[in-house]
Amino acid sequence: MILTVTLNAALDVTYRVPALRPHGSHRVTEATARAGGKGVNVARVLARMGRTTLVTGLVGGAAGATVRADLAAAGLPDALLPIAGETRRTVAVVDRLAADATMFNEPGPAVTAGEWSSFTDHFGALLERAEVVVLAGSLPPGLPDDAYATLVRAARGRGVPVLLDTSAPWLLPALAAGPDLVKPNADELREATGLAEPHRAAAALLDRGAGAVVASLGPDGLLATTPDGSWLATPPERLAGNPTGAGDSAVAALTTGLLDSLPWPARLARAVALSAATVLAPTAGDYDPAAYHHLLPRVTVTALG
Amino acid sequence: MILTVTLNAALDVTYRVPALRPHGSHRVTEATARAGGKGVNVARVLARMGRTTLVTGLVGGAAGATVRADLAAAGLPDALLPIAGETRRTVAVVDRLAADATMFNEPGPAVTAGEWSSFTDHFGALLERAEVVVLAGSLPPGLPDDAYATLVRAARGRGVPVLLDTSAPWLLPALAAGPDLVKPNADELREATGLAEPHRAAAALLDRGAGAVVASLGPDGLLATTPDGSWLATPPERLAGNPTGAGDSAVAALTTGLLDSLPWPARLARAVALSAATVLAPTAGDYDPAAYHHLLPRVTVTALG
Repeated sequence: MILTVTLNAALDVTYRVPALRPHGSHRVTEATARAGGKGVNVARVLARMGRTTLVTGLVGGAAGATVRADLAAAGLPDALLPIAGETRRTVAVVDRLAADATMFNEPGPAVTAGEWSSFTDHFGALLERAEVVVLAGSLPPGLPDDAYATLVRAARGRGVPVLLDTSAPWLLPALAAGPDLVKPNADELREATGLAEPHRAAAALLDRGAGAVVASLGPDGLLATTPDGSWLATPPERLAGNPTGAGDSAVAALTTGLLDSLPWPARLARAVALSAATVLAPTAGDYDPAAYHHLLPRVTVTALG
Repeated sequence: MILTVTLNAALDVTYRVPALRPHGSHRVTEATARAGGKGVNVARVLARMGRTTLVTGLVGGAAGATVRADLAAAGLPDALLPIAGETRRTVAVVDRLAADATMFNEPGPAVTAGEWSSFTDHFGALLERAEVVVLAGSLPPGLPDDAYATLVRAARGRGVPVLLDTSAPWLLPALAAGPDLVKPNADELREATGLAEPHRAAAALLDRGAGAVVASLGPDGLLATTPDGSWLATPPERLAGNPTGAGDSAVAALTTGLLDSLPWPARLARAVALSAATVLAPTAGDYDPAAYHHLLPRVTVTALG
């Protein structure tokens, strides 16, 4: 079982409006909602790839209940821990004029020290059944900045490999605990290290304790920096589409690559092809299996230096 | 007791962001929510004026439960009828750069014919205790366009006076039932009649069955068109502030004026002063009692034609 952890789960709401007019009043023509947060999105992709997943993390309030109901409806088993605070919402306003949604992200519920302590116990118990752990996304208010370090340490203590996908404020304190893989994007890499050159920045994360670094460079593909070597994997062509969820698909593919003990070039090819197939899919965060199988043999993987 | 009816109740959510960037991603720095919908807002103002109110209408789902909890916390008694659909949310995005919020309004839940029939029975029972009824706001999907006509007829059948504040698609079918007072704004008046001149447009609504028309002309005040005469009531000066809720305050004041059997000029003065005191209040929809008492004797009421 692949255990995905979403400490700041979300109810992702999409509003469709004819055109966004700042400081105007909009009649929403369509409102939809589904369970979100990076760990949930990774689990969704993994399940679609035929893998057995378990979603954990923290949920609370009415939005939390809706998140659980949506996971159940999607056939995604969950072992989310209830908390007193209300799960955050994100609102994506989609208009017909622009490809990019306008996003509003609530910060998330205040988590108490007692709730965090309960979660670490709960996580420890779930680790007994986990083959690999994915930690993904932001931390809600109230959690210590090194919360991911605690979870990484617990997993590694039980010999369960850990992938971590989060941004600088929560990534840096977790590195010393030795996550097997971290997946920053180019902005997060620069923010975490202050270094503009991705390869040097990734090397700095290795020095601080990461087992391997796979940096997503947007349309330029993935850069892997590992003790066994470095590789750049690029899609066969520039892809037009919706990049939402491409990073989560890369994490899902890297997770299966680790489970399947693929060599790095094959892992990276899988991750680039799955990301690209996500960009091409009509629904944000979904992927197109035919595109994936078409793209997989066409990804270029180059060994560096 | 003043019975206010909000068929399309809402959970009004406010998001604060540093600056609104269309098609960008925003971290919401503060998210607040409270019960809303025009009838709820009118009840809030009436309660603050010391009047006894009862909120009715339709609510459902998690947002509906939050609406009820917020009303209870605010000391506003409710006799809302539960429905299967989920109460809508409105999202107001407030940034530091502009006075006007960017508004996103969900359409509201689908109401079934059975639910509507239950509500008309429920409303009939509540009328036994009502001194006056305020019908306000939009209709949710599924209700007939003449839903307000049904409620106006029921109230008048029991001798309970009715104020109606809604926009053209729902206002027009209700006029023949003879609401005692309708309160369109200038845009709604034009949309309902096709006439650009407010006095002529108001006269057209009287012809179609309205007992009296009080049109809100924004900063220019209120124009009353009644069988007993016409008056224009204007605030003593142009007011800078937040116009949100000024219309609901005007409805609240007109309701108390009717209950207190004030002559039209005094009713209008009260409504203009309360609207103006709402524009001046720091919290949207609230009013400043000191400003109200200062402004009341300074409103100019002119008899027309």
